[in-house]
Amino acid sequence: MRTREECSEHDEGDPLAMLRHEFILPEGQIYLDGNSLGPVTTSAQRRVRQVVDHEWGDGLVRSWNTAGWMDAPLTIGNRLAPLIGAGDGEVLVADTLTFLLAKIIGGALEIRRTRHVIITDEVNFHSDLYIVAGMAKMAGRDIVVKTIDRNRLSEHLDDDVALVMLTHVDFRTGEMLDMSGITAAVHAVGALMLWDFAHSTGAVPLDVTSADVDFAAGCGYKYLNGGPGAPAFVYVAPRWQGVLRNPLPGWLGHARPFAFESTYESATGMRAYLTSSPSVIALGALDGALDVFERTTMTMIREKSLALTDLFIDLVEQALPDVFEVVTPREHDRRGSQVALRHDQGYGVVQALAERGVVGDFRAPDICRFGFAPLYLRYVDVYDAVQILVDVMMSYAHLDERHAVRRAVT
Amino acid sequence: MRTREECSEHDEGDPLAMLRHEFILPEGQIYLDGNSLGPVTTSAQRRVRQVVDHEWGDGLVRSWNTAGWMDAPLTIGNRLAPLIGAGDGEVLVADTLTFLLAKIIGGALEIRRTRHVIITDEVNFHSDLYIVAGMAKMAGRDIVVKTIDRNRLSEHLDDDVALVMLTHVDFRTGEMLDMSGITAAVHAVGALMLWDFAHSTGAVPLDVTSADVDFAAGCGYKYLNGGPGAPAFVYVAPRWQGVLRNPLPGWLGHARPFAFESTYESATGMRAYLTSSPSVIALGALDGALDVFERTTMTMIREKSLALTDLFIDLVEQALPDVFEVVTPREHDRRGSQVALRHDQGYGVVQALAERGVVGDFRAPDICRFGFAPLYLRYVDVYDAVQILVDVMMSYAHLDERHAVRRAVT
Repeated sequence: MRTREECSEHDEGDPLAMLRHEFILPEGQIYLDGNSLGPVTTSAQRRVRQVVDHEWGDGLVRSWNTAGWMDAPLTIGNRLAPLIGAGDGEVLVADTLTFLLAKIIGGALEIRRTRHVIITDEVNFHSDLYIVAGMAKMAGRDIVVKTIDRNRLSEHLDDDVALVMLTHVDFRTGEMLDMSGITAAVHAVGALMLWDFAHSTGAVPLDVTSADVDFAAGCGYKYLNGGPGAPAFVYVAPRWQGVLRNPLPGWLGHARPFAFESTYESATGMRAYLTSSPSVIALGALDGALDVFERTTMTMIREKSLALTDLFIDLVEQALPDVFEVVTPREHDRRGSQVALRHDQGYGVVQALAERGVVGDFRAPDICRFGFAPLYLRYVDVYDAVQILVDVMMSYAHLDERHAVRRAVT
Repeated sequence: MRTREECSEHDEGDPLAMLRHEFILPEGQIYLDGNSLGPVTTSAQRRVRQVVDHEWGDGLVRSWNTAGWMDAPLTIGNRLAPLIGAGDGEVLVADTLTFLLAKIIGGALEIRRTRHVIITDEVNFHSDLYIVAGMAKMAGRDIVVKTIDRNRLSEHLDDDVALVMLTHVDFRTGEMLDMSGITAAVHAVGALMLWDFAHSTGAVPLDVTSADVDFAAGCGYKYLNGGPGAPAFVYVAPRWQGVLRNPLPGWLGHARPFAFESTYESATGMRAYLTSSPSVIALGALDGALDVFERTTMTMIREKSLALTDLFIDLVEQALPDVFEVVTPREHDRRGSQVALRHDQGYGVVQALAERGVVGDFRAPDICRFGFAPLYLRYVDVYDAVQILVDVMMSYAHLDERHAVRRAVT
């Protein structure tokens, strides 16, 4: 694919092409920021209206039972489970990602109660770093949080490690880690493994079962398109359900919430990890957004994702050689669904692109980040985005002669 | 008001009468469960559509800035603040009530770090009891949680008490506590006071400032009508902002969230108590629901609330003497905005009422609970509800002869 015509032909043969019609996309925009906030689907919109107008409006309080609100965190969890290779009763949708991580970290430190170390990635998403430090402080014993270079993980693994927490796809670089290999190495020293799937779910195939993952959590608002601040999800391997205690207990996680018992007794299964009710309206948006995933497979999504990111990298390198450093790995098995380009003036580049209708985002200090969501992006969108990037860099060249952009693009 | 005509006349003179039109109420239903889940307002409905269709749909990720999403927990907090007697920058809307209580409890235990006791009410809402136990366990020192008879609070107050946590209006009985008096007694021994306003906000006037309250939190889905599982709110007195640490830190509570710093540095003001983003759609529903409160005052709401609950109690006692025990205090200054009637067969009574279109709820073991929300309830609704209650108890009499209901209602 080197011309717009070739891209257009690819779009015509794209088996996911019809799914784009399920999304409401602003006119004249190429949206490469679905890794930050996915767009609204007609099904999410419809489901929100159903919840607000009918379930809440007409059903009122009775909808807790008649509309299935009480079970929604579990039923939506079951819908989401196949996207991460989990089964029924293994995923719960609730709260936000940081709270769900807090519950897992706190619970895991109790399971490995004689160990003193949590390992995480020095370039992990900062909310993960903050909450791991917060929960370590409340563990009731001295816990050392080691924030390491993840490439040197093996050097830090020993029998004092209670938990390793890593993000599966790096939020800046888009690098994807080896879930099975790392999980096995962590298990080899008797530690527990918690994966953050924020940048993975809905974008790359995941299989927590075959990778023998202990715990995982992710957010609902990126590739899942569940809406701004959507409820998050958590996976607890069946072997840990009933063992992992919820350190932030609330009434909805009680075995008998309506018995109003003064002493906490945990519910069984994933319900144990509820605290109190997430917004039912927000759950509705995520529920609706999941519809589109049931019309395809993660294999098909992955195939197109790699084609889109390959195309973007190829076109950028061809049109703008030496202008950007392509930070995202070229190897397919090390790439998520985004491409990160490093540039000294990255912030200005992203702003200028946005003015021309190409929405990416900037991550300090110098990363231009472009997400490629196969459900609604076309190959011609990638082509057009690169052409606009070329235009931007040409007009940018006089601002920053060091990059000799004009030479590069002519 | 002893006849339907008199009630109807009162409705005609009711200064809040026009506000009922802002609510979408199912036909043929008398909704006395707004203390569990408030109904939808046209403004909440409209605001949700605006968030979903325009801010999310058209604005996409840019709405974090252009539509004010980043500040929404604070701006909606500022709208809510007058309802509890707080000022700008003193209230944050986020998460759920249990998580916000967790943050305050954890932070308060650090402030009073040499003390070892938390006092709460043995009949407090059970989620409050569970989270106080959960946070006590994570305090890093031995903390005793004393669940006491709140009427004997003074006997338990001493200089080892770090925190007292009480719910201002009892969720079962509707009894309202003396906020100022209790707060002063707690302060007299150097302890901190946390009020749960779940059953107070939007129903009774509150003044955290004049009562010198340290911390308060409440939910958005009862009298505030913010929707099922709506975000909750928290108040931190200005003197504690910057002192009270958030023990569950997340990226949105960082001083510079987009600087991606690996070390947590708390934001100033109420933003410090954010963890990660609550659902923006859910925030929208609550934001819209607050519109109606800006068209009246808590004084007017309270006046009507007392008139409605007085009317209900009077009519029940007149029509059904000795059938129910009226559990809710008669004294105005000890009553919230609900009436609790005790009956052995309370569950069946509430079910039978619901079948006839009168929605209340049941709280184990024997409480029939009826909430009176002055913004949308009419005096004739109270009259009609009691007539239906009489009918129910008459047809119920043969099931439970002990209450001699037939005699009572003829």
